[in-house]
This record gives sequence, structure tokens and C-alpha cells, in this order.
Amino acid sequence: MDMPHPSPAILSRRDQIVAGLRALLPGDAVIDDPAETRAYECDALAAYRCAPLAVVLPRTTAEVAATLRFCHDNRVQVVPRGAGTSLSGGSMPTADSVVLGVARMNAVLETDYDNRFIRVQSGRTNLSVTGAVEAEGFFYAPDPSSQLACAIAGNVAMNSGGAHCLKYGVTTNNLLGVTLVTMDGTVVELGGPWAETAGLDLLGVVCGSEGQLGVVTEATLRILPKPEGARPVLVGFASNEVAGACVSDIIKAGILPVAIEFMDRPCIRACEAFAKAGYPDCEALLIIEVEGSDAEIAEQLARIKSIALSHDPVEFREAADEDQARRIWLGRKSAFGAMGQINDYMCLDGTIPVSSLPYVLKRIGELSRDFGLEVGNVFHAGDGNMHPLILYNANTPGQLETCEALGAEILKLCVEVGGCLTGEHGVGIEKRDLMGVQYTPADLEVQMRVKDVFDPRWLLNPAKVFPLDASAGRRAG
Amino acid sequence: MDMPHPSPAILSRRDQIVAGLRALLPGDAVIDDPAETRAYECDALAAYRCAPLAVVLPRTTAEVAATLRFCHDNRVQVVPRGAGTSLSGGSMPTADSVVLGVARMNAVLETDYDNRFIRVQSGRTNLSVTGAVEAEGFFYAPDPSSQLACAIAGNVAMNSGGAHCLKYGVTTNNLLGVTLVTMDGTVVELGGPWAETAGLDLLGVVCGSEGQLGVVTEATLRILPKPEGARPVLVGFASNEVAGACVSDIIKAGILPVAIEFMDRPCIRACEAFAKAGYPDCEALLIIEVEGSDAEIAEQLARIKSIALSHDPVEFREAADEDQARRIWLGRKSAFGAMGQINDYMCLDGTIPVSSLPYVLKRIGELSRDFGLEVGNVFHAGDGNMHPLILYNANTPGQLETCEALGAEILKLCVEVGGCLTGEHGVGIEKRDLMGVQYTPADLEVQMRVKDVFDPRWLLNPAKVFPLDASAGRRAG
Repeated sequence: MDMPHPSPAILSRRDQIVAGLRALLPGDAVIDDPAETRAYECDALAAYRCAPLAVVLPRTTAEVAATLRFCHDNRVQVVPRGAGTSLSGGSMPTADSVVLGVARMNAVLETDYDNRFIRVQSGRTNLSVTGAVEAEGFFYAPDPSSQLACAIAGNVAMNSGGAHCLKYGVTTNNLLGVTLVTMDGTVVELGGPWAETAGLDLLGVVCGSEGQLGVVTEATLRILPKPEGARPVLVGFASNEVAGACVSDIIKAGILPVAIEFMDRPCIRACEAFAKAGYPDCEALLIIEVEGSDAEIAEQLARIKSIALSHDPVEFREAADEDQARRIWLGRKSAFGAMGQINDYMCLDGTIPVSSLPYVLKRIGELSRDFGLEVGNVFHAGDGNMHPLILYNANTPGQLETCEALGAEILKLCVEVGGCLTGEHGVGIEKRDLMGVQYTPADLEVQMRVKDVFDPRWLLNPAKVFPLDASAGRRAG
Repeated sequence: MDMPHPSPAILSRRDQIVAGLRALLPGDAVIDDPAETRAYECDALAAYRCAPLAVVLPRTTAEVAATLRFCHDNRVQVVPRGAGTSLSGGSMPTADSVVLGVARMNAVLETDYDNRFIRVQSGRTNLSVTGAVEAEGFFYAPDPSSQLACAIAGNVAMNSGGAHCLKYGVTTNNLLGVTLVTMDGTVVELGGPWAETAGLDLLGVVCGSEGQLGVVTEATLRILPKPEGARPVLVGFASNEVAGACVSDIIKAGILPVAIEFMDRPCIRACEAFAKAGYPDCEALLIIEVEGSDAEIAEQLARIKSIALSHDPVEFREAADEDQARRIWLGRKSAFGAMGQINDYMCLDGTIPVSSLPYVLKRIGELSRDFGLEVGNVFHAGDGNMHPLILYNANTPGQLETCEALGAEILKLCVEVGGCLTGEHGVGIEKRDLMGVQYTPADLEVQMRVKDVFDPRWLLNPAKVFPLDASAGRRAG
């Protein structure tokens, strides 16, 4: 993965920059000891690493503003970081950049159950947002797999989703407002606890902007009352095609399960070997979960059962109790771990029309054979958000490159059928050079001009999202 | 309402401009006969009028692009127009501007039931989108009161809502993609039938941008399967406070009716006198509608009933059949007509936190007495979207001004309690000079800079949304 060469001028001023930051911030907020900055050299796209010039860990919006203003005035690039769980390299630093991490900003600032919102500092982890309101019977809906660790700041940057976003939407559907600090240190409030926007909806464009427009320091999030209960069913099919058709029919019937998870044979086998969840030996498997009151659950499951049975499943398994429900989810929840047992893997994130699932799965199988690397598929089928896992061996020379090339072909396939490079992981560095597959140069130009508005010097996370050659002129400025 | 003085230079070139447009477009696409342009002198905010320089009614994206490019090159301002149903003056012209109306662009371009979307030209009316898919059991969810007449182009420009948006969201939640023509004639595709966005979410910022970023010529819209049935209940209360508390409790319990409509005493009386729907004589009335299968409806209504009864309503009326359901809705649906029978009225659109409903209604009552103008309240209570109707007599000198002053106070009140100037009608010219109440100069500057990106010369609908003094320097350029 190409990254721009670090600026010798900045590197030569390292001590001066660190001293300047220390003068502005509390003593423990600035880290420049290489032994400590190493922890920030990569995120969850761990194949790519580079230690930053320094790391700043502020505790307040004012400290974030002071840091950004200083870096702006000194033309130092800043890479914002939530919890470092990005799968697309969104918080990977360069050697001449300062990492601005919000991990210490994790306070709950306000909860309002009447109006169903919570306001938190952006470093708070996703799961601990729910933790702060669950005693009152509420929860925060977006649930990325990394929810135990990932920060709201990263969720906003990447517009994160999760298994339950079929029903509840992704981050942008649950985000009411943010406090944003732009690169020159200006603090802006966008949206608010209840506000529809008058004027331009800048909150919408900030959500998913991958830390390129500003640093989000506080977020107001919608919270929802916990449903009374939830129950999964497991349905096994003799082919991907039939499983895909079943997903289409459920969606088309207007049923809205909270999750429809799809696993193909390579993934089922790996999970079964790893977790011994008792999954059937079949080509494709759906886990469909519905929630609500007992009556609502029963009604929805009856409709789903009738649709599923019309597709001649090899297995239809209902969960009679909590323990059976847990067992149905067990394999799915350990899928990434199970695949990791077999080999290193790269997890893609293309999103496609639900109706092209069978075609795309067939083509992925063909590409997998052509490139000689196994691909397991486990994904949120209800909204067409694929997660192909390409298995490779990092210690075999050339395999990472083969894996990247296969990944690029799969993502091109997603765009070709009318889908998108990324459903929830973001572009980062991983898909940066594929943006030209999705967008024309004119499209990219308009997007870059919006970045110009917020960050005219292109100092904030600049080597991400846009192909390096497309952004070259701006980054040099 | 102040509007900028028309440019003498443009007015003096009127014939030349019209001839230039005629050279580009089919004969019947350009209208400049004053008898015909008069139909375009105002929208539904009919208190303000001004005939435009000319009207262009293209049939294709290419004709829109040609018109915009010509106007851009000749520095002629363009006012985009859907069906002219804007309540905020969003499509009101100035004497030196060309109105670009999309009314003739009303074709259905594609329907896809498997993937649940429809692609239409943007002049198609809201209701006829549903009309195009209802035979297959689908519908388009956003339902502004003007849905029989209003165009999708205007819905996108204003991010329109409707009575049912509590459950289904507003336009931005149902809009998947647009074809946008920017002022210089560039055609851009944003979003798409299934795509989450990679890179910046420009679709989100275009939706609700009030025709200031570009002209939307085609839109891809999510369609939903029609629910099996729907049923309303009517609940009367002895005070606004108790009705407001009941709304809060329903929302807090996690029940999601498709609509919770609220009417206060002045409005109940006017509706009853007009439509004779048999409404109870009480201080506040809620109409709550739920939908789904019979079992789902029964279950939701039982929970709503139990909450409502705990607030000691003066009346709780269930609809036993279609006819009773129709009668419950009858008064509400004729509310605007009923108020119009009494007097002229101005309809506001402030949005507030649901929990401050009782306080805001009490303050509106006090302001109404202070200003000596009656105010009726009928609104979408579930999401706090108020619609105060101020009654005045247009023939009494000074009453329009008093009405505007009262309206401004009510909107300031909405912002003061943490709400917003507009829930669904947009800023237009109506709330333009109040934007400073909601936003700081720095906030407005960032929004205007985003407009700069799309329309550097500020030729597209320029005298709207932003206070005239704030946008003066840009409009002059």
C-alpha cells in the first residue's frame, strides 16, 4: 500500500513540534517516546504500520482545539484515532503526522430518557453507551462486531453498522448531533438532541467522512427502549442461490427481522470445527433473528417459517429457549475467530443489491479458484452488506499481494452489480485506490472540494479515502 | 419580506436571454409571456409574489444541463421549482431570475421490487410514485399533506416529512440516490439504488439543501411493502400538559405508531364546526394510528390504551371499522381547510423536544394573547414537529406584519427549548432572517462555504435560506 513520503521539513522539526504541543497540553497528554508511540503505529488493518511523529491524548474539546490549531499553524498533519479498531486503515499514521486519540474522552455528559438521547464524549466505547442506559431499559442500536472496544468517534467517522442495522439503521440513522473541531481549531455544533436541520445538513456529511473534515469530540446519540425479547431461527439450504432467494423473499414481504446473517460452506465448516455449535452440513445457512413481545415474535417467526419452508430448506431450527438461541448464535459470533484459526485473513466489506447475492457468491467462488486463495462468506444479508474473508498466509512471500489483488477484483464485482466498495468499514487506505472504480473524476473532485471547505490545507487524515494521485495537488498545498 | 433588488443589467438583457434559451430548447419549453409567467410568481407562501424574467420547463436532464450552463455563463440567477407547493417561499422568484420548473419531467424510469426501489424523474408527484407501485403492494412512505400535488424534486429540496414519518422517517431516510445538475451544467450521480456511500455522503447534504446546490432531475426512492392494515384511536384530554405527557410515555415505551397527531382546543373547535367529525369538546386530542397485521395492531393498541388510560382521558375512542376510522381522521385531515374558513392563516413548522410540548403550548397561548392573534395547533406530536397556525386577516392593514412578528417569537421559542426553526417546510424566504437565532456566524459561514463548492457564483436560488446580510458578499460576486 503506497503512502506519501514523510516531509523532511516536518521530521527535522520533531522536537520543536513536540515541545510546542507540551506547552499547550497537560504533561501526560503528549507521547513521543518511540516505545510508546509504537502502540499507535497501526489499527486493525495490521498489515500496514508506521510509527507517528507523536501522539496526543486530550481530555476536553478545548484541548483538541488547541492541538489542532497548533498543528494547523505549523502545517503538521493530524491523524484522528478512536479506539484503533478500523479495518480499513482509517487511523493508520504517517511518520510526519501527529495522532490525535480521543480514548481518554469517555464521559457521559447527559442522558435524557424522555427525549431518548444520550450525549457522550466521543472516546466512549460503543458498548459502554448502552451500558450507561441499560439500567433504565434503553440501548444504543448500532452494534459493530468490535463494539466492546470501538469508540463512538470511529463509529461516526466510518458510519459504522452492525448485525442489527437491518432494523435500526447505521450510525447516521442514530446520530443526532456532534461537537466538531475543524483543523483550524474552530468548534462547531452540528445537529442537536432533537433538531431536524434548518439549512444544510452538515451532520450528514460529517458522518462517514473518515476523520477528514474535523475531529468529533462529543456526540448526541438516539437511544431506544430495549425490546421485550428476541429469538433466532437457523435455516440451512442446499445452495447459495436458494438461500439468497429466501432472503429476497423475506425482505420483499415487508418483514423486518433485526438480523439476517448468511454463512457459506467454507465458513460453516470453519465455525463448526472451531465452535462445535451443531450447525448442519450444508451449502448455505441463514440465522434470522426477530424481536419484540412474545406475540410479535411468534407472528414474525410464523411468516418467516412459511417463506423459508417454501424454499425447501435442508434444516429449519427454531430456538425453544435461551440456551438453544445462544447455540444458534455461537458459530456466527465466532466466525472471525474460526477463520483466523485456519489462516491470516483479510475481511472485505462490499455492499450489493440483495437480489444479486447468488450471482456474486458464484463469481466470488470462481475468483477464489482463479487466485488460489480460499474465501469464506459471512455477512449481513438483509441489507446486502457482504463480508468476504480471504484466507492467506502472511509468511508466504507474495500471498498478501495476491490476497489484495483478489480483494480488489471482488470489490470491483460489487460495484459492477450496482453496489458499493464499503458498507460499514470505510475506505481508509484499503479501498482508497479503488475509489476510481466507483466514482468519476468529477465526482471525486466535488467530494474533495467539500473537504477543502473544512480543511483547506489538507492536513487532516489527508492520505486516505481519495486516490493519492487525485489528491496530490491538494496534499502538497 | 425583503428581497434583493433585481439587477438592471440582467433586466435590460431580457430579450437576449430569452432568445438564448429558445435557441437551446424545444419551442414550448421557454415561457416569457407575462400572462403565463404570472402562474410562477409565487408558491404556497402566497403572501409574497414576484413574476420571474422567464420560465423554462425542460423534459430531460440534458435540457436542464443546457439551461443551467447557459444561465451560468450569462450570470443569470435560476430558481428551481417542483410543483410550487412550498410553504416557506422556497420557489418564489425574483424579477431577474429564470424559474426552472421540472413539472414536465414525471416519468417512471425503473421499478425493482426485489430490491425495493423506484427511479423517477423528479417532477413526478409524491402520490403518483405510490400510484406506480401500489398494484404490486408497495408504497412510498413520506406523505406531505400536499402529496397529491407536490413533486419529488421539492420533497428532496426540503427533506419533506408527513404524518407518517414518525415510523418511516422523512425524505432523507427514503432517498437512495439522485441525478444532480450543478449550476455550471455538470451532471453528477449521487448514491444509487443500493449503495451505502464510499467517501463523502453528498446525497445527505443535497437532501434538504433547498435547491441551492443543484437541480435534482432524477431520484431513486426506497419503496416499502404496504402493511396489511391500519387503525386509529382518538384520545381526548382535559389539558395540553396531560396529552403531551401521554405522547412522551408512548414514545418512551418504545411503541412506534405510524402517526401521533395532536390538536389543541382552537383547532378542535374549528375542525368540528367545519367537518362535524364528532370530536369531543376537550382541551387536547390525540389521533394515534398503528399498522401491521391484525395481531400486531391489536397488540400495539392494547399497550397504547393502557398508557392512555393511565392519564385519565376524557375520551378514548377505538375505530371498530373502516367508517369509524375514516371519521376519526376526517377532522384532522380538514384542519387546514377549517382554519382557512375562519381567516387567513400562516402555518409555522418549528420542531421541539417532545418533553417540552406542554411548556411550548402554554407559551404559545400567552404569546397569542399578547399579540392579539388566535393560534391553533395541529401537529405531528410523535416527533415534536409543531404546526402552529396563526390566524390573521390579510385585509386588515398591519395584521400580516403582526402575524410575522408573532411567528418569529414562536420560532425563537422553539429554538430556545432546544428545537429547530423547521421540521419539514424548509427555511426558504420565510425563516431566512431567523437563521441567526439558530446558528452562529461561524456555523452559517461553513454552510455557505459548502454552497460555494457547488455554486461558486451563487446563482442558484441565492436569496433564500441564509440571512441576506450574511450572504450579501457572495451574492454580489
